[in-house]
Amino acid sequence: MNINRFENNPLVTPSDVKPLHDGYEVIGAFNAGVAKYLDETLLLMRVAERPISEDDNIIKAPYIDKNSGKLEIIEFRKDDPRYDYSDPRMIKPAGQPDRSIYLTSLSYIRIARSKDGINFTVDEEAFLYPFNDYQIFGVEDARCTQIDDNYYISYTSVSPMGICDSIIKTSDFKTFEDLGNAFAPENKDILLFPEKINGSYYALHRPSLKSMGNYDIWIASSPDLECWGHHEHLLGIREGMWDSGRIGGGLVPIKTEKGWLELYHGATPENRYCMGAVLLDLDDPTKVISRTKDPIMEPDFSYEQNGFFGDVVFGCGGIISGDVLTMYYGVADTSIAGCTLKISDILLKLEEG
Amino acid sequence: MNINRFENNPLVTPSDVKPLHDGYEVIGAFNAGVAKYLDETLLLMRVAERPISEDDNIIKAPYIDKNSGKLEIIEFRKDDPRYDYSDPRMIKPAGQPDRSIYLTSLSYIRIARSKDGINFTVDEEAFLYPFNDYQIFGVEDARCTQIDDNYYISYTSVSPMGICDSIIKTSDFKTFEDLGNAFAPENKDILLFPEKINGSYYALHRPSLKSMGNYDIWIASSPDLECWGHHEHLLGIREGMWDSGRIGGGLVPIKTEKGWLELYHGATPENRYCMGAVLLDLDDPTKVISRTKDPIMEPDFSYEQNGFFGDVVFGCGGIISGDVLTMYYGVADTSIAGCTLKISDILLKLEEG
Repeated sequence: MNINRFENNPLVTPSDVKPLHDGYEVIGAFNAGVAKYLDETLLLMRVAERPISEDDNIIKAPYIDKNSGKLEIIEFRKDDPRYDYSDPRMIKPAGQPDRSIYLTSLSYIRIARSKDGINFTVDEEAFLYPFNDYQIFGVEDARCTQIDDNYYISYTSVSPMGICDSIIKTSDFKTFEDLGNAFAPENKDILLFPEKINGSYYALHRPSLKSMGNYDIWIASSPDLECWGHHEHLLGIREGMWDSGRIGGGLVPIKTEKGWLELYHGATPENRYCMGAVLLDLDDPTKVISRTKDPIMEPDFSYEQNGFFGDVVFGCGGIISGDVLTMYYGVADTSIAGCTLKISDILLKLEEG
Repeated sequence: MNINRFENNPLVTPSDVKPLHDGYEVIGAFNAGVAKYLDETLLLMRVAERPISEDDNIIKAPYIDKNSGKLEIIEFRKDDPRYDYSDPRMIKPAGQPDRSIYLTSLSYIRIARSKDGINFTVDEEAFLYPFNDYQIFGVEDARCTQIDDNYYISYTSVSPMGICDSIIKTSDFKTFEDLGNAFAPENKDILLFPEKINGSYYALHRPSLKSMGNYDIWIASSPDLECWGHHEHLLGIREGMWDSGRIGGGLVPIKTEKGWLELYHGATPENRYCMGAVLLDLDDPTKVISRTKDPIMEPDFSYEQNGFFGDVVFGCGGIISGDVLTMYYGVADTSIAGCTLKISDILLKLEEG
């Protein structure tokens, strides 16, 4: 697989982003939805801000107070045996590795924009900042699907009530209309298809299942992009392979002559994240035509291997120009990188299996 | 709270139900959706059949083979340290108390019918038997909502892919139309409201959340009863109280002058199941008006306390006649009992808090 990573990768790093909050540091500018708007490429970056801690024994967790609407901090002592701090992204109750009670940073969506697709300038303000009770721990991992003149942005809302997939709609990337929580929790990684198929909209999504089932990709349909049903299991993890731990949709599905091309992320149980490809039937995207055995992209470069949460390439969006896909992808839960791939190469790899 | 339990409770027991499968025994006829159809009261019972095991060291788990469509059995040895058999309903992987890999019985929906609402005759055949890959471990806990001349039956589909909420539609209780999996997994306890409210259908549902959130009741809306969105958190568990472990919708919401009356089930972490009441705004059922502090019904009688899974009263449906609600409820995951309550009494209890 021929992947041309940009020479000046990573394109956006935390040091390019000024924190919105006093006493906070930006530790991540990553996992960006992508839009072509007017003459610019927009990266709808997930920016993660962490409260600065002067005391190594204290871990601070930010949250938005429901009543005041203000950003507050709760402090945890590292020697408190009631908690597990082994995952730097969250605070877990001791002995319950699947549960988390606080996150260690607040994420929101902020735009970086570029005329050449390579050199980006970061907006001074957030585009999508937590605005309701389902988001008091932040909003994460936007994907952007253009349908006619509107852009639908699907993203994850995090709160103690659960982890929801939510959708907003914008036509100017300044204001937006809230379409609510589209999926019941716990769910992540909604990807909206860019057009109706046989009269219905479609979306990929990735439920997180408690008692039965794996971190697999499901598909659902909708009459209006707000209400979803006819949920079907689409694609499973694969034991012993690079995507044995969890998978989830990555880029907005790309329409090709061969079918809908979906570039998805897959991880091992040890959280090494790669990208793979799957081809879905053009007329019925609930049908899988083929899937790459190997990843099409792995964390091979140092900026992909080292960071806040290393060994991660995590594509959320791209720009298509003829046969060329310019993919923007989060690296190591820290920065954003770019690369170009040929769609024909991916389709060839899918034919090879 | 004045509850008149029927004198001949339980009304239907496993011994009243002939197993559909050779080599199986009926261990439960419980948790029934309820419909008034023509001149009969129909109980859409969950019937659980368990493979008979001659060897005390062997636990048998039934499943429907995807390829052949036939009911098969997999055997587990009780001394196999890879599994945890502490919950008689399921087989868990050792050390993962939240997970299950097989169920020890196959559930399906079978009708018991009565002209007087007290003496029931059980149909010879299943009404709703697992019919797709999402149901190879069974279908459970039907609720039935009449909307005009159609009856919508919401139920749980169980398979290794996950636990889904599904809906079928019938007008004759013989044939039905499949409306698919209405909610992303993992979810249980869908309750459809019996009419549109301000132009939308509404449903209660109960996601099972992996990393954040509790076993709480959520509410969603729909244009067509098939696709659902605008998910909102409605009602939470209450620490230290009778509904501190999990809650879920019980009966189809009842329209009263004061609001939508929902009788829900709540359990302690030790799985003692009671029934409580909550009142929702008539014009906007996402708004909670009041909730009973104490249960309105507890497992007080021996047939409610003893059985396959004891200390359970679990109402799924009822018949309204003026101020009288005849509630049918599952007891001890074994049998079905009946009782009458006055709606005015419940509303009074809701006013008291």
